[in-house]
Amino acid sequence: MTARYVHGACAHIDPLAIAHNLRRLREYAGKGVGGTGPSFWAVVKADAYGHGLDHALPGVLAADGLAMTSVADAYRCRAQGWTKPILLMGDRLTAADLNDPVLYPLHLVVQDAWQLEQLERFSGASIPHVWLRFAGKLNHAGFTACDYPAAYARLHALFIAARVAGIGHLQHYARADDAKQLALERHAFTELTAGLAGHHCTENSAALLASPAIAAQTQWLRTGIALYGVSPFSGNCASAWGLKPAMSLQAPIFALQDVQAGEPIGYGGAFRSGRRLRIGLVRCGYADGYPRAVRDGCPVLVRGRKTRIVGRVSMDTLTIDLTELPEVRPGDHVTLWGSGALPVEEIALAAGTIAAQLLTGLTAQVARRSASGG
Amino acid sequence: MTARYVHGACAHIDPLAIAHNLRRLREYAGKGVGGTGPSFWAVVKADAYGHGLDHALPGVLAADGLAMTSVADAYRCRAQGWTKPILLMGDRLTAADLNDPVLYPLHLVVQDAWQLEQLERFSGASIPHVWLRFAGKLNHAGFTACDYPAAYARLHALFIAARVAGIGHLQHYARADDAKQLALERHAFTELTAGLAGHHCTENSAALLASPAIAAQTQWLRTGIALYGVSPFSGNCASAWGLKPAMSLQAPIFALQDVQAGEPIGYGGAFRSGRRLRIGLVRCGYADGYPRAVRDGCPVLVRGRKTRIVGRVSMDTLTIDLTELPEVRPGDHVTLWGSGALPVEEIALAAGTIAAQLLTGLTAQVARRSASGG
Repeated sequence: MTARYVHGACAHIDPLAIAHNLRRLREYAGKGVGGTGPSFWAVVKADAYGHGLDHALPGVLAADGLAMTSVADAYRCRAQGWTKPILLMGDRLTAADLNDPVLYPLHLVVQDAWQLEQLERFSGASIPHVWLRFAGKLNHAGFTACDYPAAYARLHALFIAARVAGIGHLQHYARADDAKQLALERHAFTELTAGLAGHHCTENSAALLASPAIAAQTQWLRTGIALYGVSPFSGNCASAWGLKPAMSLQAPIFALQDVQAGEPIGYGGAFRSGRRLRIGLVRCGYADGYPRAVRDGCPVLVRGRKTRIVGRVSMDTLTIDLTELPEVRPGDHVTLWGSGALPVEEIALAAGTIAAQLLTGLTAQVARRSASGG
Repeated sequence: MTARYVHGACAHIDPLAIAHNLRRLREYAGKGVGGTGPSFWAVVKADAYGHGLDHALPGVLAADGLAMTSVADAYRCRAQGWTKPILLMGDRLTAADLNDPVLYPLHLVVQDAWQLEQLERFSGASIPHVWLRFAGKLNHAGFTACDYPAAYARLHALFIAARVAGIGHLQHYARADDAKQLALERHAFTELTAGLAGHHCTENSAALLASPAIAAQTQWLRTGIALYGVSPFSGNCASAWGLKPAMSLQAPIFALQDVQAGEPIGYGGAFRSGRRLRIGLVRCGYADGYPRAVRDGCPVLVRGRKTRIVGRVSMDTLTIDLTELPEVRPGDHVTLWGSGALPVEEIALAAGTIAAQLLTGLTAQVARRSASGG
């Protein structure tokens, strides 16, 4: 009976899947257990891509560092016991943050003149490692090709004075999912940084999976979406690379409804069936972050079998066809994405978006629970 | 300088706007201060339409009752000091919940046979008021026209035995935004309930605003979206009815970027400008719930002036055109929706969705703060 009272949607997070994916990605980069190869930043921005930082951390313990946008998340990771490097990729730090030994070993992405000046003023007991960011073709902050050498020279002066711990070169590709564009972006960065000492950090999930041999030549990789078992490319699934989804989104059926042939289902009355249907009412909707934009027929799983959404997703309810599944009962849980049989990539396609948007778009209404499926 | 360090997006909630909207809606229903007219359920489901229950409650103190989906939210409202009726519209209650005097005065929507049986077994010190739900054209739970009279008879027997406090008739319209369909749905319900004693609760924001004279003939209205100052109809804004937006979504500019003519901006490289642009990088993205699907040119407000998004919205950044706004600096806040000059309805249109999806889709990354703008 208790299952009748599980009220809302729940994202089950499997840290073992994340750990598995990290091992797989290391293999792609030529680094098995105990081998050599690039170091890995595990990207845990956006609350670990919606998985919940606390739930994801046990899965990334073997990473060489954690990369994130927000300094608040950096403090959370330290509070959870993370002692290896942290890479801060977006926030501007206060002088108090820069001086806080808790954040160290700290790597900072330097992307504008304000940050250069801050570092030139700063003298603390701990000193950060810095990564100079190239604006590239993304143009989300970073130095242009014209300004990059001068910015490097200023950082190099700080390095000589032992006021930064090291200098690396970093960029975010704008089109890593397009082989030709990726090659052009790589080439431009190689040209730009020729003759400038320092490690490179440019390769993300898409670049690594598309061309592992090239990615393996850099010193630090940044992997986000693939770490969570999701493809960075539209139109295929991460299982093609042996990666496992780390999140399974589930919600309970709270009632059943028999709907006569020709009657509408849902707001707007857009869906009508030509025959009588048995409908399951599922306690999940767009207020949970489930995409309102999914096309009719979007798949779901219940009791191991695939069926489909019928009618428009509403704020707190979605409706699924149970006509051929008479054994299903209120209290049964429906998998909305995330098992091997129903990858989130498929739902993203049905919603006209990308998987990262679905994962990170789950709202606070959705409980996150750790559940190791192996 | 402190503004430089406000890191993320924030939704400013104005409870005075909600209180104003409730007064306006009462006027539409023919009930001014001290007058007569229907009672109002203020719908606070989905964390008060994304506004945050705690922030919205001070705005709905004058409502006659609060309506919600989840029993957990009912307990939160009681903990906040709400003593008037609560209407539970979705969750199945445990016997312990039904017996908990804290939840009373309690109104329950009865939508399936399981609930009827539960009430027939139940005998507690406090007894709930019940609302029998018609499946209507929505078919999200509720009794069909065939089953409704028998369900009513069973509830009536409980009422005679003083085991429920009262019986009302309730439905959710499937197409309240379409005048002709609304008239048909109203007519069907009037026919169905003819001769059955009890109050009616059928009219929502759209039905009230479209035909206030008809809505005013019912005893309890349920208003959700309009209460938050947002139109229930696509293509127009709630200001047309004198309603005020209760949420303003803002995010800081964390850096500026000069982009040469012909260079791309954002992932995928879909946007290129024919001329040099000055870009503001705003700390808000789809992981906050801002819609990734907005078309290029979607408006934003900064320093009171309208400008536009250029390039694709990414996980934690969106890029706006500041070429004609040279006075804007990092640390300035951008309004993404919610002021009178930039209604959320306009953003919903640009994103191909509805305003309720945007409001309720904000994630836990977005801070909610109370801010009374009057």
